[in-house]
Amino acid sequence: MHDTDRKEKCGVFGVWGDPDAAHLSYTALYAQQHRGQESAGIAASDGKRIKAHVGMGLVPEVFTDEDLDRLKGAAAIGHNRYSTTGSSKCENAQPLLEEYVGGQVAVAHNGNLINADLLRRHYEERGHIFHTSTDTEVIIHLLAAHHLSKQDPVAEALTHLQGAYSLVFLFRDHVQACRDPWGWRPLVLGETAEGHPCVASETVALDAIGAKFIREVEPGEIVTLSENGVSSRRFADVQQPAHCIFEHIYFANPSSKLFGDTVQIARETMGEKLADEAPVEADYVIPMPDSGRSAALGYARQSGIPFREGIVPNRYVGRTFIQPTEKQRKTAVQLKLNVIDDVVRDKRIIVVDDSIVRGTTTRGKMQQLRRAGAREIHLRISSPPIRHACYFGIDFPDPSSLIANQRTVEDICDFLGVDSLHYLSIDGLLHCVSRPANNYCTACFSGIYRIQVDRPVSKLRLERDQMEMFPSGG
Amino acid sequence: MHDTDRKEKCGVFGVWGDPDAAHLSYTALYAQQHRGQESAGIAASDGKRIKAHVGMGLVPEVFTDEDLDRLKGAAAIGHNRYSTTGSSKCENAQPLLEEYVGGQVAVAHNGNLINADLLRRHYEERGHIFHTSTDTEVIIHLLAAHHLSKQDPVAEALTHLQGAYSLVFLFRDHVQACRDPWGWRPLVLGETAEGHPCVASETVALDAIGAKFIREVEPGEIVTLSENGVSSRRFADVQQPAHCIFEHIYFANPSSKLFGDTVQIARETMGEKLADEAPVEADYVIPMPDSGRSAALGYARQSGIPFREGIVPNRYVGRTFIQPTEKQRKTAVQLKLNVIDDVVRDKRIIVVDDSIVRGTTTRGKMQQLRRAGAREIHLRISSPPIRHACYFGIDFPDPSSLIANQRTVEDICDFLGVDSLHYLSIDGLLHCVSRPANNYCTACFSGIYRIQVDRPVSKLRLERDQMEMFPSGG
Amino acid sequence: MHDTDRKEKCGVFGVWGDPDAAHLSYTALYAQQHRGQESAGIAASDGKRIKAHVGMGLVPEVFTDEDLDRLKGAAAIGHNRYSTTGSSKCENAQPLLEEYVGGQVAVAHNGNLINADLLRRHYEERGHIFHTSTDTEVIIHLLAAHHLSKQDPVAEALTHLQGAYSLVFLFRDHVQACRDPWGWRPLVLGETAEGHPCVASETVALDAIGAKFIREVEPGEIVTLSENGVSSRRFADVQQPAHCIFEHIYFANPSSKLFGDTVQIARETMGEKLADEAPVEADYVIPMPDSGRSAALGYARQSGIPFREGIVPNRYVGRTFIQPTEKQRKTAVQLKLNVIDDVVRDKRIIVVDDSIVRGTTTRGKMQQLRRAGAREIHLRISSPPIRHACYFGIDFPDPSSLIANQRTVEDICDFLGVDSLHYLSIDGLLHCVSRPANNYCTACFSGIYRIQVDRPVSKLRLERDQMEMFPSGG
Amino acid sequence: MHDTDRKEKCGVFGVWGDPDAAHLSYTALYAQQHRGQESAGIAASDGKRIKAHVGMGLVPEVFTDEDLDRLKGAAAIGHNRYSTTGSSKCENAQPLLEEYVGGQVAVAHNGNLINADLLRRHYEERGHIFHTSTDTEVIIHLLAAHHLSKQDPVAEALTHLQGAYSLVFLFRDHVQACRDPWGWRPLVLGETAEGHPCVASETVALDAIGAKFIREVEPGEIVTLSENGVSSRRFADVQQPAHCIFEHIYFANPSSKLFGDTVQIARETMGEKLADEAPVEADYVIPMPDSGRSAALGYARQSGIPFREGIVPNRYVGRTFIQPTEKQRKTAVQLKLNVIDDVVRDKRIIVVDDSIVRGTTTRGKMQQLRRAGAREIHLRISSPPIRHACYFGIDFPDPSSLIANQRTVEDICDFLGVDSLHYLSIDGLLHCVSRPANNYCTACFSGIYRIQVDRPVSKLRLERDQMEMFPSGG
Repeated sequence: MHDTDRKEKCGVFGVWGDPDAAHLSYTALYAQQHRGQESAGIAASDGKRIKAHVGMGLVPEVFTDEDLDRLKGAAAIGHNRYSTTGSSKCENAQPLLEEYVGGQVAVAHNGNLINADLLRRHYEERGHIFHTSTDTEVIIHLLAAHHLSKQDPVAEALTHLQGAYSLVFLFRDHVQACRDPWGWRPLVLGETAEGHPCVASETVALDAIGAKFIREVEPGEIVTLSENGVSSRRFADVQQPAHCIFEHIYFANPSSKLFGDTVQIARETMGEKLADEAPVEADYVIPMPDSGRSAALGYARQSGIPFREGIVPNRYVGRTFIQPTEKQRKTAVQLKLNVIDDVVRDKRIIVVDDSIVRGTTTRGKMQQLRRAGAREIHLRISSPPIRHACYFGIDFPDPSSLIANQRTVEDICDFLGVDSLHYLSIDGLLHCVSRPANNYCTACFSGIYRIQVDRPVSKLRLERDQMEMFPSGG
Repeated sequence: MHDTDRKEKCGVFGVWGDPDAAHLSYTALYAQQHRGQESAGIAASDGKRIKAHVGMGLVPEVFTDEDLDRLKGAAAIGHNRYSTTGSSKCENAQPLLEEYVGGQVAVAHNGNLINADLLRRHYEERGHIFHTSTDTEVIIHLLAAHHLSKQDPVAEALTHLQGAYSLVFLFRDHVQACRDPWGWRPLVLGETAEGHPCVASETVALDAIGAKFIREVEPGEIVTLSENGVSSRRFADVQQPAHCIFEHIYFANPSSKLFGDTVQIARETMGEKLADEAPVEADYVIPMPDSGRSAALGYARQSGIPFREGIVPNRYVGRTFIQPTEKQRKTAVQLKLNVIDDVVRDKRIIVVDDSIVRGTTTRGKMQQLRRAGAREIHLRISSPPIRHACYFGIDFPDPSSLIANQRTVEDICDFLGVDSLHYLSIDGLLHCVSRPANNYCTACFSGIYRIQVDRPVSKLRLERDQMEMFPSGG
Repeated sequence: MHDTDRKEKCGVFGVWGDPDAAHLSYTALYAQQHRGQESAGIAASDGKRIKAHVGMGLVPEVFTDEDLDRLKGAAAIGHNRYSTTGSSKCENAQPLLEEYVGGQVAVAHNGNLINADLLRRHYEERGHIFHTSTDTEVIIHLLAAHHLSKQDPVAEALTHLQGAYSLVFLFRDHVQACRDPWGWRPLVLGETAEGHPCVASETVALDAIGAKFIREVEPGEIVTLSENGVSSRRFADVQQPAHCIFEHIYFANPSSKLFGDTVQIARETMGEKLADEAPVEADYVIPMPDSGRSAALGYARQSGIPFREGIVPNRYVGRTFIQPTEKQRKTAVQLKLNVIDDVVRDKRIIVVDDSIVRGTTTRGKMQQLRRAGAREIHLRISSPPIRHACYFGIDFPDPSSLIANQRTVEDICDFLGVDSLHYLSIDGLLHCVSRPANNYCTACFSGIYRIQVDRPVSKLRLERDQMEMFPSGG
Repeated sequence: MHDTDRKEKCGVFGVWGDPDAAHLSYTALYAQQHRGQESAGIAASDGKRIKAHVGMGLVPEVFTDEDLDRLKGAAAIGHNRYSTTGSSKCENAQPLLEEYVGGQVAVAHNGNLINADLLRRHYEERGHIFHTSTDTEVIIHLLAAHHLSKQDPVAEALTHLQGAYSLVFLFRDHVQACRDPWGWRPLVLGETAEGHPCVASETVALDAIGAKFIREVEPGEIVTLSENGVSSRRFADVQQPAHCIFEHIYFANPSSKLFGDTVQIARETMGEKLADEAPVEADYVIPMPDSGRSAALGYARQSGIPFREGIVPNRYVGRTFIQPTEKQRKTAVQLKLNVIDDVVRDKRIIVVDDSIVRGTTTRGKMQQLRRAGAREIHLRISSPPIRHACYFGIDFPDPSSLIANQRTVEDICDFLGVDSLHYLSIDGLLHCVSRPANNYCTACFSGIYRIQVDRPVSKLRLERDQMEMFPSGG
């Protein structure tokens, strides 16, 4: 037996009624590319059959004009998938397109199910077979199992799921989209200029296709997009929401509206709050580009210390750089981010970034700043220390690899070689967003999970590495 | 609901015990390339996990050195898949690798099941889902369904299948190979130079890897290749065999031993028989290269009429030739096969080919010979007229497209513009092979099927064309 | 006869003495990718023969590990080439590798020669043949013509050139690098950590390979890198320099030191100067990302108006986006840069960008800001209006396509739909860099060219479009 | 200094007047693919400019529909280039497109010049530069050098050439084609169905485009194809022809008419002659496919011994087969050609092939036949022993690698492990073709060269291996 996987930052989209549904999906996936660069896929229905095209790579690499032209029909869904490991394969790309007693169905999933393994074992014991290791595949088994016996098989299937899921289903003649009762991942409802309903992970996708934002899909809600417009039903009672705060910190597009706040503004506010929590005398506030840019701006504004650009990104850096020889390895560190010596030399600088995961990259940057002559380096992080695993859709490395997992802030400060280090507090963070504090999930910082998670993480990791053929869902 | 498809000329291979099992499989697939050029795949087990690599194209296009290196382990199976339509996709490539309650299993299939649709419907009604339209996928559902309840789930699964199948299964720690009770498709057992057991569709694959031919896998037999060597069991009683005679006529490699005969010799004998059945006075016997070469030789030998090469193939012709402009279309006919004017001019020639399917290509060649000055053209075909569909693994076009389906030989002779035309009789054909006549399936000529086939073919065709996502099995 | 072309933003590199010279070149080209994305190439000498590898695309797309391994030797040069049109072909990629009476020579060129056509005609009349239309090719003809008759054929060849050129030559056993007497394009001398000499267009390339900046190569100077270290000679008298100010405004990497100034600091200063020249009351200063970011920072600092991020770039936008359908075309404008409504709504904003070329893209952005609710938009440009052609290495479109060519600032303001518009003055611009004002070329703003250019530009354009086979030099 | 190379089996084509000239060229190159598989190229003129597209690989791999569409115009030439080594690069592909004082010219060359090095040195000393090492490039320098001074620069240029050349030039408004005074390589004139003139290396290309064969281009003749139809002039006096007999033995397409004979018939006659020269008692005559097929047929006919197919080629073998592991290397020998055991077992067989070069492949095949049980093997070769270098367009390996170079036929017989071996005599060979014996070049057998060749071959080889960038002409 194997186990499903944890890599779950993805983007989803769906539209009903536009004759160029596949083209709209393409544009929406393009705008949501930041949510997943490993693979992309679109499934479209012409009312009779569903066709799908999926592939590895960025959206424009996956699709040709001809691919889009073949995806005929007025209903379509799309999926962006995040890349973390080299072993990923085309088999993992979504939407999954399957055939069952109800006909064809395609599904795109953003999130992570924590009871997928149990459900999979349940179905395997009843003779079902699986061809991916995505937790997404069990959803279709649930749907198939309840198709003949239940009036609302989709709603029935969802009641069996535990975890985070924003899902978009494409059936022959309609689209259904739903969000788990806790609202971990975002999902918004929009309307195109021509009046057709659509759903997307982020409002940036709506902007890209010229659609207007209508509202969030509610936690526990299913919306159906069809020739009858949009209809809604609930499949679960209202819960206390558990919105993923990390979407605001790092993951979402700055121009998106998320859980009631504009991301860019939330990030600037985090920088302001950070300045309040950890003021320090310095010459400049310097952002780590591009991740720390918004918070650095807030920090500078609040502290009154000048904002300067001191680190320059190479806009053309990609994954394919040929490893330099051993000798060059030391020297090529400046390739991705280059320090402007004349800005930082002999200066006391505050460097602002959004988070630290393993710490090794950050350390390299701090050394580079030091070599360029920075006199003092004060590192300010606009999120609390990441200490715990996420089971709800963010793919952090194993907790033992997280620099903050078993180290104090002082130890980390020493390791990074900076003069001072401050992380934004959880309370401070929650002041930067507008919903009540208990509406957000902060488990990666606090270790307090909203629903019980009882599997040892290290075992899961191990099994994943043995399982090249079947990486995880969406 | 959809329906499985008919495109079923494929090759299979399996080996147990060689540390380079994937490399051996690669070589074997290369040697069996004539059995399928659409896709190729290999699955290998290192004793713990099975990995697979499949792709579209010829064997050397699908695999890189690195791909083979990643397929570690001493057990491996492989598959060649035949290409017929442009809609084929990577999803169809075999071996299929699935996970079920028994763990992982990969399967490679040559043949065609006639009850796959019924079985599929049966499982879909019980909530199972399908991700390909290959009839092969139902085999794994059968295996999964009987895993917990039966002592020999493979044997149990096979008893539910109707149709043609030479199958190779790869489990974590052994290989199983079996052949349907009628022996429609070939499957042979061999032994590598190092003494490891292997199975292949044709003996040419054994030759290529330096293995020796041991015996055929018997119809209704399962052989298991494992650390205990080869063991055998039966899953079905002995039936009157129904070996596909078309393997001898056209499909198999001339150097292979098949159903007890060497293909080349069988083909030459067909040519001799054809000379007996339809003698004619002429200057030369000319083969249609390369398909008619063996039979032409037999015809010339038996008739005493000189064998001449009069038609030259372009060895570099592939599928990718850019369509010439309308004007050129007429003129480019000689690109694939060019006639040698000086050989055929003013001569009475006997042209020998192995079969005629639609007749349009043959007609073009006859016109070309006529333009080159041939005085008389006597066409001799070393098989009977193909008039009926094959449900057991050969992908003929729809019967209505077969030139012999509703036409007399005289009509065909007129259509082709030849002076005389003769097809080898069924009786004559069966005299050219050494097993009793009733051991062969000749349904495509006679319309007499060994087992009942009760589906209207035209409907199947129609459905296939609607179903781009899910082309058929192997 | 044809004519050479104008597309001339490129990067060059050279190194002598490092056993991994090709790998170093690869890293340097990677760091200079912003200077040219059309093609890349490296030539290396093992002391006996020079080999070259060139190709279309980004640096990591052009080279594989094996390509670099084949480029053996301790001397190498490299080239980045800028892309402007779809007709570009592999033939244009540099370094050019040629053979002449002196043996092999490879050359990489950044700049543009204004007398290349005359020289080419001269040699063609003497029976020479040309296989590219790059002005670079004439340089090698000059070298060949003077090889037997002159003591210093490189110096002799250079005296015949008119225009802008930073050149790197690779000979069998040494590298020579030179810069035109006016110093239009940058060229710097560095030293690797192991003490080997190198040259590059920008210091960012030195940083990337861990080399230290030694000095600029002087206008009119040739430096030779060989086993004897670095030697220098002059091939022309000292001229009043004509450094391209547009390198500072837009083209160079912000972290590079250029003509004695750090680019980032020069750009911030331009923003400050712009604030002095054109103050306006507003709520926010918003940069056009990423081109206006540095100047916006300077403007905000000088004006005291808060700096805000209000426009978000899509980091994954590439050239391959499939054109949306006509209907979507209007809506997809936000795909590349998305406005944050909540930041700009009801606000008076100052938008800062570095330059305006055609004006159409800028206009689209202004409309987008307006739709997002901006109450007032004051556009500030950190360069003077671009009104004239550049013959010295920057590929502006034909002057008639430049929005400022025949329009007043008021007209442009109307066209863009902004409340006010100000361009930085030429004087103001020249105050932002540290060398004397007459050391810079500002011809694209003023129309005053340092050396006489007497060809009608529109004719050149026309001819270029007819000449697909032979795009221009480097 | 370097030296030009010897790899010179190529195909050329040219047409004037057809609006789809590039498409016609594509089809013609496709039909001449056997003359060169390394690269292909087409140049076309629309009356104003010439464009070219060249690339590595087979014809259908080099061109897309779009490539052909861009090659507009009614005049076009094409080139197939032969592959021998892995170091070949795109730079070598022809047609070469150059610009000189006369405008643009493209040229395609089949043959080899023996004074190319001298001419190249001559021009290099006058300051000319070279960018390929093809001997073809010097032809354009000759053309350019005489353009202003001579009335007929093409004819003038040709008088300076020594060696073998069938050349096709494309100028802006016409095509010129010529053949060296000795007529080493074939070149034929044809007429399309619409009446447009064309030239090709072989008549098989005329057949493919539906053109009719008019006549050979005469040795020493230039034909001009233009809006005035075909005109002809001589540039050299009539010489005693030196047609390459190896075209008939191996290289040309069997259906082509060459030097007045149909290739297929010439080959069959060689087999008959071989039967006369070296009769032997045996059970079967077996061809080595496909090279020995025609001669085997002649041998069988003349000797009365039955013709049998005993060796089966793998039609899908390509260059990309992944090298098997060491262990498999021995076993994979049967992959390319597989022996039919049941045909050869216990039989006395005569194996007929067209030639032996190094002998190692032949030896492997003989061993395979022996292992399959052949009782006696009598090898008959339808050409004399190849003992000397060819300087006129066939790329044999270095003479020291030729098995017949310093070995007697007895020694070779022992090495190959056959019971008897006979090569066709030179006299016998020349009886098989219809022109006088002294009209053919047989230097590779006899060592008697028609024109003086005074360079040591081994030196050339050495230099070639050092020169990766610049492989040879066409």
